[in-house]
Amino acid sequence: MFLRIDKLQIDIPRPTEADPAAANTVNELMGGKFGEMSTLMNYTYQSFNMRGKSKIRPYYDLIANIAAEEMGHIELVANTVNLLFDKTFEGGSPDGAPLGMANSAPNPDHFLNMGLGTIAGGAGGAKWSGDHVFNSGNLKLDLLHNLFLESGARMGKIRVYEAVQNETAREMVGYLIVRGGVHQEAYAKALGDLCGIDATKLLPIPEIESSKFPHARKFMDKGYHRFMYRFTPDDYKQIGEIWNGPQAETGEEREVVDGIPEGGEVPDLTPIPEMFAPNVSAEEIAEIAKKLG
Amino acid sequence: MFLRIDKLQIDIPRPTEADPAAANTVNELMGGKFGEMSTLMNYTYQSFNMRGKSKIRPYYDLIANIAAEEMGHIELVANTVNLLFDKTFEGGSPDGAPLGMANSAPNPDHFLNMGLGTIAGGAGGAKWSGDHVFNSGNLKLDLLHNLFLESGARMGKIRVYEAVQNETAREMVGYLIVRGGVHQEAYAKALGDLCGIDATKLLPIPEIESSKFPHARKFMDKGYHRFMYRFTPDDYKQIGEIWNGPQAETGEEREVVDGIPEGGEVPDLTPIPEMFAPNVSAEEIAEIAKKLG
Amino acid sequence: MFLRIDKLQIDIPRPTEADPAAANTVNELMGGKFGEMSTLMNYTYQSFNMRGKSKIRPYYDLIANIAAEEMGHIELVANTVNLLFDKTFEGGSPDGAPLGMANSAPNPDHFLNMGLGTIAGGAGGAKWSGDHVFNSGNLKLDLLHNLFLESGARMGKIRVYEAVQNETAREMVGYLIVRGGVHQEAYAKALGDLCGIDATKLLPIPEIESSKFPHARKFMDKGYHRFMYRFTPDDYKQIGEIWNGPQAETGEEREVVDGIPEGGEVPDLTPIPEMFAPNVSAEEIAEIAKKLG
Amino acid sequence: MFLRIDKLQIDIPRPTEADPAAANTVNELMGGKFGEMSTLMNYTYQSFNMRGKSKIRPYYDLIANIAAEEMGHIELVANTVNLLFDKTFEGGSPDGAPLGMANSAPNPDHFLNMGLGTIAGGAGGAKWSGDHVFNSGNLKLDLLHNLFLESGARMGKIRVYEAVQNETAREMVGYLIVRGGVHQEAYAKALGDLCGIDATKLLPIPEIESSKFPHARKFMDKGYHRFMYRFTPDDYKQIGEIWNGPQAETGEEREVVDGIPEGGEVPDLTPIPEMFAPNVSAEEIAEIAKKLG
Amino acid sequence: MFLRIDKLQIDIPRPTEADPAAANTVNELMGGKFGEMSTLMNYTYQSFNMRGKSKIRPYYDLIANIAAEEMGHIELVANTVNLLFDKTFEGGSPDGAPLGMANSAPNPDHFLNMGLGTIAGGAGGAKWSGDHVFNSGNLKLDLLHNLFLESGARMGKIRVYEAVQNETAREMVGYLIVRGGVHQEAYAKALGDLCGIDATKLLPIPEIESSKFPHARKFMDKGYHRFMYRFTPDDYKQIGEIWNGPQAETGEEREVVDGIPEGGEVPDLTPIPEMFAPNVSAEEIAEIAKKLG
Amino acid sequence: MFLRIDKLQIDIPRPTEADPAAANTVNELMGGKFGEMSTLMNYTYQSFNMRGKSKIRPYYDLIANIAAEEMGHIELVANTVNLLFDKTFEGGSPDGAPLGMANSAPNPDHFLNMGLGTIAGGAGGAKWSGDHVFNSGNLKLDLLHNLFLESGARMGKIRVYEAVQNETAREMVGYLIVRGGVHQEAYAKALGDLCGIDATKLLPIPEIESSKFPHARKFMDKGYHRFMYRFTPDDYKQIGEIWNGPQAETGEEREVVDGIPEGGEVPDLTPIPEMFAPNVSAEEIAEIAKKLG
Repeated sequence: MFLRIDKLQIDIPRPTEADPAAANTVNELMGGKFGEMSTLMNYTYQSFNMRGKSKIRPYYDLIANIAAEEMGHIELVANTVNLLFDKTFEGGSPDGAPLGMANSAPNPDHFLNMGLGTIAGGAGGAKWSGDHVFNSGNLKLDLLHNLFLESGARMGKIRVYEAVQNETAREMVGYLIVRGGVHQEAYAKALGDLCGIDATKLLPIPEIESSKFPHARKFMDKGYHRFMYRFTPDDYKQIGEIWNGPQAETGEEREVVDGIPEGGEVPDLTPIPEMFAPNVSAEEIAEIAKKLG
Repeated sequence: MFLRIDKLQIDIPRPTEADPAAANTVNELMGGKFGEMSTLMNYTYQSFNMRGKSKIRPYYDLIANIAAEEMGHIELVANTVNLLFDKTFEGGSPDGAPLGMANSAPNPDHFLNMGLGTIAGGAGGAKWSGDHVFNSGNLKLDLLHNLFLESGARMGKIRVYEAVQNETAREMVGYLIVRGGVHQEAYAKALGDLCGIDATKLLPIPEIESSKFPHARKFMDKGYHRFMYRFTPDDYKQIGEIWNGPQAETGEEREVVDGIPEGGEVPDLTPIPEMFAPNVSAEEIAEIAKKLG
Repeated sequence: MFLRIDKLQIDIPRPTEADPAAANTVNELMGGKFGEMSTLMNYTYQSFNMRGKSKIRPYYDLIANIAAEEMGHIELVANTVNLLFDKTFEGGSPDGAPLGMANSAPNPDHFLNMGLGTIAGGAGGAKWSGDHVFNSGNLKLDLLHNLFLESGARMGKIRVYEAVQNETAREMVGYLIVRGGVHQEAYAKALGDLCGIDATKLLPIPEIESSKFPHARKFMDKGYHRFMYRFTPDDYKQIGEIWNGPQAETGEEREVVDGIPEGGEVPDLTPIPEMFAPNVSAEEIAEIAKKLG
Repeated sequence: MFLRIDKLQIDIPRPTEADPAAANTVNELMGGKFGEMSTLMNYTYQSFNMRGKSKIRPYYDLIANIAAEEMGHIELVANTVNLLFDKTFEGGSPDGAPLGMANSAPNPDHFLNMGLGTIAGGAGGAKWSGDHVFNSGNLKLDLLHNLFLESGARMGKIRVYEAVQNETAREMVGYLIVRGGVHQEAYAKALGDLCGIDATKLLPIPEIESSKFPHARKFMDKGYHRFMYRFTPDDYKQIGEIWNGPQAETGEEREVVDGIPEGGEVPDLTPIPEMFAPNVSAEEIAEIAKKLG
Repeated sequence: MFLRIDKLQIDIPRPTEADPAAANTVNELMGGKFGEMSTLMNYTYQSFNMRGKSKIRPYYDLIANIAAEEMGHIELVANTVNLLFDKTFEGGSPDGAPLGMANSAPNPDHFLNMGLGTIAGGAGGAKWSGDHVFNSGNLKLDLLHNLFLESGARMGKIRVYEAVQNETAREMVGYLIVRGGVHQEAYAKALGDLCGIDATKLLPIPEIESSKFPHARKFMDKGYHRFMYRFTPDDYKQIGEIWNGPQAETGEEREVVDGIPEGGEVPDLTPIPEMFAPNVSAEEIAEIAKKLG
Repeated sequence: MFLRIDKLQIDIPRPTEADPAAANTVNELMGGKFGEMSTLMNYTYQSFNMRGKSKIRPYYDLIANIAAEEMGHIELVANTVNLLFDKTFEGGSPDGAPLGMANSAPNPDHFLNMGLGTIAGGAGGAKWSGDHVFNSGNLKLDLLHNLFLESGARMGKIRVYEAVQNETAREMVGYLIVRGGVHQEAYAKALGDLCGIDATKLLPIPEIESSKFPHARKFMDKGYHRFMYRFTPDDYKQIGEIWNGPQAETGEEREVVDGIPEGGEVPDLTPIPEMFAPNVSAEEIAEIAKKLG
């Protein structure tokens, strides 16, 4: 079972103005092949489908618990995309064509099908697919996959960070670089434990350290790169059998945190009458009609 | 944010023997177009993307909270599929071809790619796609969609119930018929409230009452068709502004429950050495090798 | 069986100049998930597959007849897209790269694969898919779907209207808003009849009235919002058992029209020698060759 | 514009009993890559998108008119699939699992998502896609495509004929072999006319003559292999400039027929209460409930 | 550039009789997500796209050369599938329905669309997609991917081996287990070299040794697990800088072979007149016609 | 079996500066429906799957040998795309957002998922699919398909030539127009031989001669339009039974060349530290970090 709390894992700063192009690029982190939908669903299915859970409990706890954290990650990405779209039409719109931006939008679906909300797909328009879930049932192979997935995802986050110079986006992406780094390292540690080698020596992939990104460094200063939160009231207690020892980038001690981050507010998104989102008053209709001639 | 509890929403009885054909049919309820992945992701994205939340709080609370319940539904479906596959090879396998069943399986992916685990797709083999998420941003339209989605989903559950005569499957499907019925009714009620009509008069869709299904009736006897659980420690308190009045099928009072179902144990699935799931001992390898000649 | 008449349902005014960006946006109304391919094919398959036709004849007549009208809608959308592309290269092209616009086109397929013709897909590039056809066989559920589909489609048309300020496009979209509104209302009426409620009270979805759009109002002034044409020489006579009573937006009487709209001419599209569409003369080849150096 | 007539192009004999496996195979002729959806939509889009219609009128007339005939072909295939599914449950169903056949159906979607109706896809489960539409805008290339498409389609029809020994299916497939053969020949003739060769010499593709199939021969005896019907009240009159001369297989004269085939009745399909198609009475519900325990 | 030699990498024994179910399962190794199309195309694109080739030449040589070997692997899989289908109709076919097997075939496309030839897709019917190509441009990440890909592919080969007890299939799969094992190990070695650890310690994945499979052991006895062939007249000479040291499973020396395997004959596949493959004589047509009545 | 040579079929001139928009358009020739992946894979599968090879050897030799040439064509397209992307960031990047171009790239995958490498898909973002492979097993039908495929591909090449005015691109496309023209003609010749007509009379499709394109004419001056190279050390010797007689455009003699083109160097692509392709030094990391603040 799952519980939901009406807070985000961190506070996302509101942008000073809309940045729809950045919104689309950040959407890659939602439903691109290496976006948060993929990490979420891979670990969720692996936790559901794992055979012999009692035999390999710490691994089950690790994967099941990270899955819960990932639900919060898709929430973070969505809220960031939505904030970047916030007040997109505020500066006014072309006379007579309130949604004229749709014609040159990177992904017209944001305008024509969504109400400027996050799409369950990537920046290029392809929708997320269950085909992105890997789950052979073999623990070593699934862990190797997860290490690869997190490495591909880290590359994706870093490239989005490099593409989008926007404090709202970078705050969130910086956080994901740190937390994704924890997951990447956890899977490397778990895999290495099974095989008798220190597989965290493969990191960082790509070669750049997380601390090189100012918005990631900020979260590292609070220790977020060392923490494995337990996103559960009272379960998954054996993750500490895997998550222990010195953290790969800094050498500080890894730590299991019995609880969740303090978190931040779910932002209230500005209505868009031109899109009838969430609804329109008679006055707003009159105003739209006036614009249309 | 989301928390995870290592329990299922109900107890699923273990099957007395494997039923791989039923397992595949039940998989439709996971990732078919009207499966639980679709209800989960529609409400999740709608809750993330909703504009003007503060203006229409009860609707936000309703959709956000149901999304949390749906996470538990994909967990239920997955565990049921997995139990139906449990001990598939127990009766022994054809000499020399331990996985010979793959050749005539309804979906060979269960054998060749998964370790007899639930697929993020439907019974026919198509994977779940983000294309199944509808979210226009307009509240009335999104609610109409949700009513339709739950109605299509109810048809799907009923047909799977009719196709699979297996206590493990029917217990779970009976539960989903009842809980899906609550969601269907909630969206009809919410939509009707907005428009000044009693849209629950459209129900039941299809025309058969839930109580006609013995495994659903059992849960109705406990009142599950009247309850809207709050799957949250402390949020989504305004759902009662929508979920109130007489339940559509029985006329009993609708009720908001401040908490979650008692729940049942996550079953420990039997390992499958022939599939290296989750791993194999030297002895098991020797035994497999012997079978292969 | 189907007959074809070499006329469009309305006259589409020729644009004064090409508007390729608008052409792509209007293409959404062809093969987007809520485009005319979807309405056409849903009703077509539902009419083919309906069981017990003799038992529910008026519903069969309604759906079968609307399907025939929709064939004319895909024709209208296609001709509009094609007219918006007409003379795209008239202003001359970059020296030496007659098709240079392909490099920054919203959808390069219009230039590289089509001959600036309408694509069987949406504005974002995804092709139309048979997956968009819903047909459970249950009349109530299929009607609810159709109501939802027309509501999603109405949202789509309205947003395209708001995005594209072009008389050619708006004339056609205005017409579709009115005719789609008739279908939306017909399905609401039919569904409500089955359930004993007035489901047209759910309309308009979204909340804006059709008459707010000048190019729709123009067609309403001719009564098009009240008419259900019979697109057939001599069949589907029982639609009047459903299509009767006061029209939802204006309260005027609904009316079954025994025949089809007067219609307009199929425009003759300008050839594009640079694309060899439909063919090229030796002189045109010489001219192209000269441009290429 | 299009008109619809409530008749099929031919009479399809009712099967003596259901043949669900054959139904799925025949469904290939609907939405497989070379099914009737593909021929229909290719010619429909080509007729919409053709540039310079006035310059190449006979080709426009040919393609536009064949498109209208193809609408009747998807209708024929659908009605055949539906008849083959008719009374599928008549022989009774497994106790307690009325839809138990879903578990081993070639395509479970027929049972779980449709109401045993035709799917907009092929026998293997893939849905029809707009990607199957080819339309370069260049007449010669489009005609070559059409010749290829009809040749692939003829192969498909022949193989389905060879796979399904069922009078209902073969009657309809025999008809399609003849009519598809006319279209194949027409495109070969049209292409050859443009290039100064007799491209009908390429036929038959594959090498077997249509008259070898008894159910095709029967229609040839009536001259259907020589006729190009005009599926229109009053248009497309220049097709005779292409469709003339000796028919490729028999040498008899090709003939333009000013009208449509006499046609046959649209069959009334038997309701399926277990699937709530099209609806259920209280008594039928009681009976279903009894079966379910 | 590429050269082709009309030989296979090994001799595949002809089956004594057709085994169409096995054919479909082996087809998974062609175009399933972890089939040979994926290994081929991943390494091909990575070799084309690699930046800084001169700086990291041994890695380029390794990947480019393995790509060439993989072209021979898709050839092997195809020929095996085709041989398993060979003489499928020899035992005679149901009276009047020469292709009746299509109705219950795991994948009807083999019968209806192909001429019993290998499909560019997997056993479940999904076609291979360019989406399966991973190529970030970062060497470490691409190598980690390749290690994962080969591990998933090894699991796939082992499961097909376990599913299909057929000498023709097992001979070929045994060979692929050995050669895929070489590639898996090479990428582990290459990745470890970059990071200063012995990443081959992660192997075998899954845990079973290749020598446990009799048909793999046979090729290991000839040293095939130690050899890296250079599939080139005169290039890719620096692969030895990576492929050296003791082989992971046996400890024997790895060896670069300046040349290709001796290879085996491309089998001549039996024509299938019922499918017009590759063509039919007048006599064969007469015989088919007789069967059809 | 296949051998690889570390050379391209021709020398591609390095561009003087990056042209990322052209790169994306040229990518259409890789993985668009009519790109080189399609020609490669169609002929490859046809050569693998052909039944009765010994009976129709010259056709086998022709198709098998052209497949080998096509491997070199995907290599040419990839290297061209990559060169057009080369030094994309050389002019410097927006302060603080080294990959800012991703936000408005025609296909953001080039930036976010690839390392500015060629994608296995088309310009519009759709990935190449095994669905594009046609192989009925019937020789005449497969040849007709190949003629159509080459004709569609020729149209694609010509349109890309017309869209991209860049010497690097045009040199390569000019070469492909000539070589694709040879394949188109070869399939027309082969098909016509089977049917007793001169099917090369259908050419050119589209109507423009290859010599009209300066970059194609240059290769024709060397005779490339007359040559069928044997891309093999010692096989496929019977292609001359088909490839003989006067070339369709010029009337010069067709000629089988026992060997391969002289070829050109595989270009060394410039590393992109901002994308960690292929890797980064500590100094480069420091520089990137500085840019990011």
